[in-house]
Amino acid sequence: ADFFALAPIQWEEKNVTAIKGPGGKWIIPPEAKESMDKNKIGLKGPLKTPIAAGHPSMNLLLRKTFDLYANVRPCMSIEGYKTPYTDVDLVTIRENTEGEYSGIEHTIVDGVVQSIKLITEDASRKIAEYAFEYAKNNQRASVTAVHKANIMRMSDGLFLRKCRQVAENYRDIKFTEMYLDTVCLNMVQDPTQFDVLVMPNLYGDILSDLCAGLIGGLGVTPSGNIGANNVAIFESVHGTAPDIAGLDLANPTALLLSAVMMLRHMGMHDYSKKIETACFNTIRDKKVLTGDLGGKSKCSEFTAEICQRVRDMD
Amino acid sequence: ADFFALAPIQWEEKNVTAIKGPGGKWIIPPEAKESMDKNKIGLKGPLKTPIAAGHPSMNLLLRKTFDLYANVRPCMSIEGYKTPYTDVDLVTIRENTEGEYSGIEHTIVDGVVQSIKLITEDASRKIAEYAFEYAKNNQRASVTAVHKANIMRMSDGLFLRKCRQVAENYRDIKFTEMYLDTVCLNMVQDPTQFDVLVMPNLYGDILSDLCAGLIGGLGVTPSGNIGANNVAIFESVHGTAPDIAGLDLANPTALLLSAVMMLRHMGMHDYSKKIETACFNTIRDKKVLTGDLGGKSKCSEFTAEICQRVRDMD
Ligand SMILES: CC(C)[C@H](C(=O)O)[C@@H](O)C(=O)O
Ligand SMILES: CC(C)[C@H](C(=O)O)[C@@H](O)C(=O)O
Repeated sequence: ADFFALAPIQWEEKNVTAIKGPGGKWIIPPEAKESMDKNKIGLKGPLKTPIAAGHPSMNLLLRKTFDLYANVRPCMSIEGYKTPYTDVDLVTIRENTEGEYSGIEHTIVDGVVQSIKLITEDASRKIAEYAFEYAKNNQRASVTAVHKANIMRMSDGLFLRKCRQVAENYRDIKFTEMYLDTVCLNMVQDPTQFDVLVMPNLYGDILSDLCAGLIGGLGVTPSGNIGANNVAIFESVHGTAPDIAGLDLANPTALLLSAVMMLRHMGMHDYSKKIETACFNTIRDKKVLTGDLGGKSKCSEFTAEICQRVRDMD
Repeated sequence: ADFFALAPIQWEEKNVTAIKGPGGKWIIPPEAKESMDKNKIGLKGPLKTPIAAGHPSMNLLLRKTFDLYANVRPCMSIEGYKTPYTDVDLVTIRENTEGEYSGIEHTIVDGVVQSIKLITEDASRKIAEYAFEYAKNNQRASVTAVHKANIMRMSDGLFLRKCRQVAENYRDIKFTEMYLDTVCLNMVQDPTQFDVLVMPNLYGDILSDLCAGLIGGLGVTPSGNIGANNVAIFESVHGTAPDIAGLDLANPTALLLSAVMMLRHMGMHDYSKKIETACFNTIRDKKVLTGDLGGKSKCSEFTAEICQRVRDMD
């Protein structure tokens, strides 16, 4: 909570745990929904989907409720946190609303099930536009569309066609296309060849986790879910780590870097730069680190160190 | 062609390039089909799908024609061929006939496309059984089912249920389940934790390439496609590398190791062991290597070196 003091943000704290609304449908509590509708920006910690019959995944419900169509995950090698890779600096941009996540499934006959992957022109164009706008606004040189249009010729074909069309409006940004399997292979061989990657929902689920693994895992990877009209929820995507709950041992980096993304999204570039730098420098200097980062410090100590460094910059 | 002399196999060479059969359907030429039906075992080099309207992927057509329901790819770190990982020793077993590869797609209304992922009880049980049999016959300790049953509850749910059921018949083999995204993340962080992995078609396409990347790429990764009644086609899965065609520069390792898998499948363990050892030792000793492996030798020199080593073992 210490780092909440680092930027002039007025926080409203709301519990988003789904409740049964009128008609028995699971919904985000109206209070939380209204707060988001008003403020447009949210920062969210890891959530556990309660074990109740038919309870939807909280992540999915939030994405759906606020039509957060783009999931954005920057992956940057962190100096001082050793992994087999250096100089990773890429961003996965995942379509967040359809594809394999349509939720439409049927039993055709006993023992034969189909799941429907839904790809629309609209959502494909929107995510492609988001990716190119992101590339433009973040001085990125290239966008790669990731697909399996050799297999799913119509659905991934549509997605790819939209990417190509949108690419024509961004002549300064290099556009390439690559099969998902080829991306995976090349990614583990040399991730530095990638820049911005855009893809349908499931491929993004996979690639964003793979890329997080390259730089140290979900404990250090921020994430943003972006919707229409600048509505956005930023979140750490790691689990709730119930085994260390309440022990002041958690690594807050992913949440902190998600907050940094949030500040950038809100145009508060000064604050975001300072906090990000303080966080990276703290990790680089290796003096105050949480256990998973290789140190012995508590979450509160690690956070205090980052906060001190931010104050020292003023 | 030199290594064809290393084992007592009578070869029949057949062109499998698809032709238009009666009724206009693309088929494997009858001659090739008959040869496979008779011999049951095939070894296949990389194929390029001809660019002709409606021409099916040769790989897919072969899998379909001979009902090759299991795609098996062992990934082992190769001593002397440096990658960021050591001690990788895992096998991906991919369902090869259905899932996202059903080929069923529709336009619902303009701009809205659906692809159907088809999962059957039958194919799921068969691939699970294959995985556990493989584990048993190859002294493997564990099988991990890879899925997204949190999202595709019915289809991946069915696949997972079958894996669980089959697991009960193999009490000596540890069975675990893991989300595909989690596998990808853990895989790039520590692949040594994995052993045998079994999964639906698309996930296998992705994971097998990812794992190949960990040990040096498709140039050194063998592959086998197994069907009912021991029918099998072994193949290197890399491309045709048209840029170096005819220059005697290609790396034959993937094809050679696929042949080694083939010999093992045929019960010719002596031959397979010798050729495999000769191949790995040649790479380890770094004296005669093709360009992609870091050397300057021609394909024929590399092959001759391996053959010489095999003969030296007798
Ligand atoms: C928790 C799960 C529903 C989710 C997903 O599959 O999208 C997660 O893996 C993610 O990437 O946010
Ligand atoms: C060439 C292509 C159709 C194929 C696939 O997607 O299955 C390939 O990637 C493979 O893994 O054999």
